[in-house]
Amino acid sequence: MMRTRPLKVALLGCGVVGSEVARIMTTHADDLAARIGAPVELAGVAVRRPSKVREGIDPALVTTDATALVKRGDIDVVVEVIGGIEPARTLITTAFEHGASVVSANKALLAQDGAALHAAAEANGKDLYYEAAVAGAIPLIRPLRESLAGDKVNRVLGIVNGTTNFILDKMDSTGAGYQEALDEATALGYAEADPTADVEGFDAAAKAAILAGIAFHTRVRLDDVYREGMTEVTAADFASAKEMGCTIKLLAICERAEDGASVTARVHPAMIPLTHPLASVRGAYNAVFVESDASGQLMFYGPGAGGSPTASAVLGDLVAVCRNRLSGATGPGESAYAALPVSPMGDVVTRYHISLDVADKPGVLAQVATVFAEHGVSIDTVRQQGKDGEASLVVVTHRASDAALVGTVEALRKLDTVRGVASIMRVEGE
Amino acid sequence: MMRTRPLKVALLGCGVVGSEVARIMTTHADDLAARIGAPVELAGVAVRRPSKVREGIDPALVTTDATALVKRGDIDVVVEVIGGIEPARTLITTAFEHGASVVSANKALLAQDGAALHAAAEANGKDLYYEAAVAGAIPLIRPLRESLAGDKVNRVLGIVNGTTNFILDKMDSTGAGYQEALDEATALGYAEADPTADVEGFDAAAKAAILAGIAFHTRVRLDDVYREGMTEVTAADFASAKEMGCTIKLLAICERAEDGASVTARVHPAMIPLTHPLASVRGAYNAVFVESDASGQLMFYGPGAGGSPTASAVLGDLVAVCRNRLSGATGPGESAYAALPVSPMGDVVTRYHISLDVADKPGVLAQVATVFAEHGVSIDTVRQQGKDGEASLVVVTHRASDAALVGTVEALRKLDTVRGVASIMRVEGE
Repeated sequence: MMRTRPLKVALLGCGVVGSEVARIMTTHADDLAARIGAPVELAGVAVRRPSKVREGIDPALVTTDATALVKRGDIDVVVEVIGGIEPARTLITTAFEHGASVVSANKALLAQDGAALHAAAEANGKDLYYEAAVAGAIPLIRPLRESLAGDKVNRVLGIVNGTTNFILDKMDSTGAGYQEALDEATALGYAEADPTADVEGFDAAAKAAILAGIAFHTRVRLDDVYREGMTEVTAADFASAKEMGCTIKLLAICERAEDGASVTARVHPAMIPLTHPLASVRGAYNAVFVESDASGQLMFYGPGAGGSPTASAVLGDLVAVCRNRLSGATGPGESAYAALPVSPMGDVVTRYHISLDVADKPGVLAQVATVFAEHGVSIDTVRQQGKDGEASLVVVTHRASDAALVGTVEALRKLDTVRGVASIMRVEGE
Repeated sequence: MMRTRPLKVALLGCGVVGSEVARIMTTHADDLAARIGAPVELAGVAVRRPSKVREGIDPALVTTDATALVKRGDIDVVVEVIGGIEPARTLITTAFEHGASVVSANKALLAQDGAALHAAAEANGKDLYYEAAVAGAIPLIRPLRESLAGDKVNRVLGIVNGTTNFILDKMDSTGAGYQEALDEATALGYAEADPTADVEGFDAAAKAAILAGIAFHTRVRLDDVYREGMTEVTAADFASAKEMGCTIKLLAICERAEDGASVTARVHPAMIPLTHPLASVRGAYNAVFVESDASGQLMFYGPGAGGSPTASAVLGDLVAVCRNRLSGATGPGESAYAALPVSPMGDVVTRYHISLDVADKPGVLAQVATVFAEHGVSIDTVRQQGKDGEASLVVVTHRASDAALVGTVEALRKLDTVRGVASIMRVEGE
């Protein structure tokens, strides 16, 4: 059954992921050929710095002209691991127009322009695969798109950023503050010199947009995702979480509304019970919970980043796209037929943990409780601690809308007896 | 893009899983049509007892003649959820010969005759999908076959039987003995009236054979799988496990030998550290660890059985097979090109926890230690407890071959000072 003419692969980008893709394509060439049904050949590698020595890559394949490479016309699959919006976007659409299918690891681009790229792939009868764009090696896109294609997904709840999980895990296990934990993450190479994309939740928000779109068969743009970073999480928050039998994780949460008519997607730090499987996800690992009508709760766990794990996901897609190519078919494209509106954050319903600094005098609790009641937010528990004329109140609410909670907090801030709102954190996974 | 002529599905079996498949096909017909690109229609349901009332199923579709149904010639996909070897095997091959692709949930059949069934599918240019055969709703076959198609899997380690996990979890959490925990599992419907297939490991062994074959791109027959049930596990074993910071799980373990030239597959109870993610898999849930060269450690977790979860997996396959049908392609078939030999249990290398009842007198430990040394089994720790002239020795070994361990135990039994071997248990997941 083996075809002898090789399938030609163009690699765009040869950094941590790209070099690993090239290495495995060479060292595992026989296995890949057997699994695909034809040999695959690295036909060109587009890089920015051609003079850099790249072990195991024939210098004759290296070019700085990525556009010419994707326009060659004899390329079967373009693997895009450059990242960022441009030139990746133009190169991918050019690749489709010149007969290639595309495997990408580019979460930012897919989150922003996924619909347009899928349309370009479909218009040219080509594949666009991007398992590596979300949670590294963890199979997530394929299970959502294919394994759960006969089910109705209601919620995706996950740790999809390894850098922030490393930092939060460190804070949890050592009592360190945010800056100290970030410094350690940076020193160990888990955080970049500029950690903004990770710690402010941009990276996780891009993944949430991609996951929500696939899970709910609708379009969720990056701008639709509510986003809160984790730079404000304190050691005191972890202490509060522990008292509740919880820990704190930066979560990406995509939910179908109870009436099924809309969806939400959000990224923010949240308390989750220690008994929840996500609570024990350590270090830079990722894990994603998926809740569906028929399957119940599924969890997918593994390394969410790194050259080799991301290369594993890229190569799985490469094999699939090559197989499709040989059979003259394409895999599942965008599925956005449900066309559900994305509701704003105010419509999200969850529980809240609120720490208030209050005056230590009689009647404060009654005042505070009245404010919650007036905004329709029902209180589950209150804990009061006093010292030196100051006191703190920790309120945990029942499920309430984010809009009601925001209104409650605004009103609380206006009370004379409330000196400040020390922290507000959502409670998930119960 | 929607085709209006429906794809026709024949359902073989309408028990717990089949009735749920039929129900979802009806209630989610629009979603399935949108995801496939054409409507799907239930064209016939083969059952044993036609007089039984089946809610939501048109009685006109019901037949007792499964053979005639699969021979109709207009069936696109046969969904086989009868279970067992015959008549399922003949019906599936007949379906291929008459132009249908097949989705099956039949682990026993796939483990025994997978190669022949794949060959029949390929000879007729049809698909054979069976995600539901292993671990219910948990996507496992598709991730192994497709997501990891560019990686090299070295080990699959999993809890793939919910009944035994329920029993062992109960023994662990309550201190109950095996019989008491089994009785509770039976009362709650987690164990069948005859629990042999579960508690003796036959069910898990079938799944291990399927997983090993797919993971290592080779053929692993059911007879190749070493199998030990969990009926001999005692409350005392759990007490010993706890002292070591472990719990006990019935594990399916598929490994590639370190030299890569052979594989092993086995099912037996084993101690695993409480820190291992599999240790916290509770109740009837399943979870499978997959270790690969590039991806590192992945885990897949979810409900391993039940009508709805199994139906979710069946329907995911149904959507995939229908899509293939529309595009005129077939999905990945059997991949057994590696053709690796399956090594016997004696070649498996792992650690052991051995409890011995010994005479409480000087020199016994030296005698026992000599026997281990003579058989090349290195001791990690020994714990000695004495009472009333009797004593117990608990030995934990370093990694050794099963053959060496068996030889050691035989020699130990011949020592006058060894009154008995109370238990031997492997230690995994470290």
